[in-house]
Amino acid sequence: MRFLDACAGRPVDTTPIWVMRQAGRYLPEYMDLRSRSSFVEMCRTPSLAAEATLQPIRRFDLDAAIIFSDILVPVEAMGVPVEFIPEPRLPHPVRTREDVAALRTLDPLEDTGFVMEALGSVRSSLEPSRALIGFAGAPYTVATYMVEGGGSKSYLETRTMMMQNTVAFTDLLQRIADAMAVYLEAQIDAGADAVQLFDSWAGSLSPSEFRRFALDPARSVIERVKEKGVPVIYFVNGVAGVLEDIPSSGADVIGIDYRIDLDRAIDRLGPNAVVQGNLDPTLMLGPADRIRTVASDIVRAGMKAKGHVFNLGHGILRTTPIENMEALVDEVHRAG
Amino acid sequence: MRFLDACAGRPVDTTPIWVMRQAGRYLPEYMDLRSRSSFVEMCRTPSLAAEATLQPIRRFDLDAAIIFSDILVPVEAMGVPVEFIPEPRLPHPVRTREDVAALRTLDPLEDTGFVMEALGSVRSSLEPSRALIGFAGAPYTVATYMVEGGGSKSYLETRTMMMQNTVAFTDLLQRIADAMAVYLEAQIDAGADAVQLFDSWAGSLSPSEFRRFALDPARSVIERVKEKGVPVIYFVNGVAGVLEDIPSSGADVIGIDYRIDLDRAIDRLGPNAVVQGNLDPTLMLGPADRIRTVASDIVRAGMKAKGHVFNLGHGILRTTPIENMEALVDEVHRAG
Repeated sequence: MRFLDACAGRPVDTTPIWVMRQAGRYLPEYMDLRSRSSFVEMCRTPSLAAEATLQPIRRFDLDAAIIFSDILVPVEAMGVPVEFIPEPRLPHPVRTREDVAALRTLDPLEDTGFVMEALGSVRSSLEPSRALIGFAGAPYTVATYMVEGGGSKSYLETRTMMMQNTVAFTDLLQRIADAMAVYLEAQIDAGADAVQLFDSWAGSLSPSEFRRFALDPARSVIERVKEKGVPVIYFVNGVAGVLEDIPSSGADVIGIDYRIDLDRAIDRLGPNAVVQGNLDPTLMLGPADRIRTVASDIVRAGMKAKGHVFNLGHGILRTTPIENMEALVDEVHRAG
Repeated sequence: MRFLDACAGRPVDTTPIWVMRQAGRYLPEYMDLRSRSSFVEMCRTPSLAAEATLQPIRRFDLDAAIIFSDILVPVEAMGVPVEFIPEPRLPHPVRTREDVAALRTLDPLEDTGFVMEALGSVRSSLEPSRALIGFAGAPYTVATYMVEGGGSKSYLETRTMMMQNTVAFTDLLQRIADAMAVYLEAQIDAGADAVQLFDSWAGSLSPSEFRRFALDPARSVIERVKEKGVPVIYFVNGVAGVLEDIPSSGADVIGIDYRIDLDRAIDRLGPNAVVQGNLDPTLMLGPADRIRTVASDIVRAGMKAKGHVFNLGHGILRTTPIENMEALVDEVHRAG
C-alpha cells in the first residue's frame, strides 16, 4: 500500500495523497447527504458515515480514506453532552475536580460501536491499495472543548484551569488520553490501517506548556496505540514553534501545518523524519496552475524526508472548486 | 531612555518592560473608567484615552506607555463604519474592486486628531525616562477586519478575495499601507517616541502568502515611518514559521509571540537582532514564583540578542491578578 509504505519510510512509486476534511462540504454529493441528515445523525449512522467516507475516494484518486466522524463523538460517551448548532457546544463544561471525577470511562465498542461498524464497512468496500485512516482528538485539544464548553478564540477557561487548578486539569488530560487510546485501538481492530491524532488547538500553547499539557498526554496515547503495529500520525496545528519537540511524541508520521515551509520543517526535523503535509488550503481557492506549481514544490521538498504523505496543511475549505482538487491529486501523483 | 536604548541595541542598566494591553480590563481603575464610557468614547475622547494610557504607569514601574486606542480607529475614518458590540463588527465589508475604490484617504489630523491630542497630553505628563508608544494595525491584519466584516476564525472571505480577486486585495493592502504610514507619522509628530505595527492575524498565512500579503505591505509602511527616526516594532502574532523573513521588514525591533522559546528565536535571527517579548500571558494567571522563574529565563535569553525589550508574547488577560503584574515588573528589572 503506497500510503503505508510512505508512512514507514519505504520506497514508493509516487507520493501518496489524502486531504484533511476530504469528506466534506466542498463535495456536492456530501451536501446532498447532509440535506437529508444532521451532522450528528451522519456520525452515528454507520451507513451514512461510510458513504461520506467513500465519496471523495470515488471521485478522486486518493491513497487513503479517513473515516467520517468528529473528534467530539467519544466525548459525548464520556458523559459530557455535545450539541452541534452547527458549531459544537457543550452545555456542561468540565472545570472542577468534581467535574473530572464524574467523567465516564469510555467503552469504545459499547459507546461508539457505530464508528467501528462504519470502519468495518468502509474497509471491506475499499480497494486493497487504499488505506483507511481512523482518528481521535489529542488530549489537549479535546480538553479545550470540554473546559470551554465549545470552540474558543482566547481559551481563557482552559488557561485558567491549567494554571489555577493544575492537578484537576492534568487528571482531565489523563482521563481523555485513556479514552482516546482505547478508542483508537478499537478503530484499528475494526479496520483502520493507520490513525491520526488531531491536536488542532495545541499550537496556541507556549513551548513549555505545550510539552507538559499537549505533548506528554499525546505521547501516552501514541505509546499505547503503537503496540497495535499501525502507523500513528500526530498533527499539531501551528507546529512551527515546537517542531523539534514532536519526534519525542513517538509518532511515526509528523503532520506539518501550512504555516511553515515544508523544506524548512524537514531541515529542522532531520532526514529521518516521515512527514505529512502541507499545501495551504487557501491556495485551493485559486488558479489550478498555481496549485500545481506549489504542490510539485512540496512533493520535491518531501523527497528530502525519509517518507512523505502529501496533504493540505489544514482542512480543505468548503468553497474549494472540485476541479482544483482534481488538479492537486493529479499533480502530486505526476510529480511524486 | 532605557526603552529607546534597548530598541537601538545600546547598553542598558536593566531590561526595559512594557506589556501589550497594559491599559486594560485587568485594572480596576480601567474598569471604573469603562463603567462610565463606552470603548469608542474612550478612544475618541483625548482626556479619557490619556487617562487609560497613564493608569498602568502610575501603578507599575513600566518603561513605556502605549497610547490607548484600537487598530480599527483609522478604519472608520477611511469610510468603513466600525461598531464594537463588544467585538468589532463592520457592517459594510470591503470585498470588491468598487469597495476598494470607494475608500477615503485618511487625513490623520483631520480624522483622528483626538488620537494625536491624547498622545500630546500623555507625552507632556509622562516622566522623561519613560517612552510613549504609538501604534497601528499592519495592512494585512486591518484588511482581514475590513474584508470579513469583523473578527474571524477561518478568514474565508479574506482568503477568497486574496486568491480570486488578487488585484483588488493588493490594492486594498496598498490603500491601508498608505493610511497607516501617515497615521503613524502623525503619531510621531504628536509625541510618540516609538511605534508598533500589530500584525495580529498574519500568523494565519502560509509563508509565501505571508511574504506577499503581509510582509511586503508592512515593509512599505515601515520604510516610510522610519524616516521619522524613531524605532519601529513589528509584531507578528504566530511568527514562528516565518521568523527568518522578519528582519527584511526593516523594523528596528522584532516582536516575538509566546509560541516559540525566545532563545530559539534569537538563535534563528542571529545576534544582531533586537527583540521584544515573550512571556506567555497564560502564566500571568498562575503563581508568582513561576512567573519570576520564567521571566528571569527570558531576560537571560534576551541577553544573547543585540537588544531586548521585555513584553508578554500577546496581550495580558483580563483575569490577571494585579500582584502578578507587580511581580513580573519587579523580576524583569531585578534580573535584567
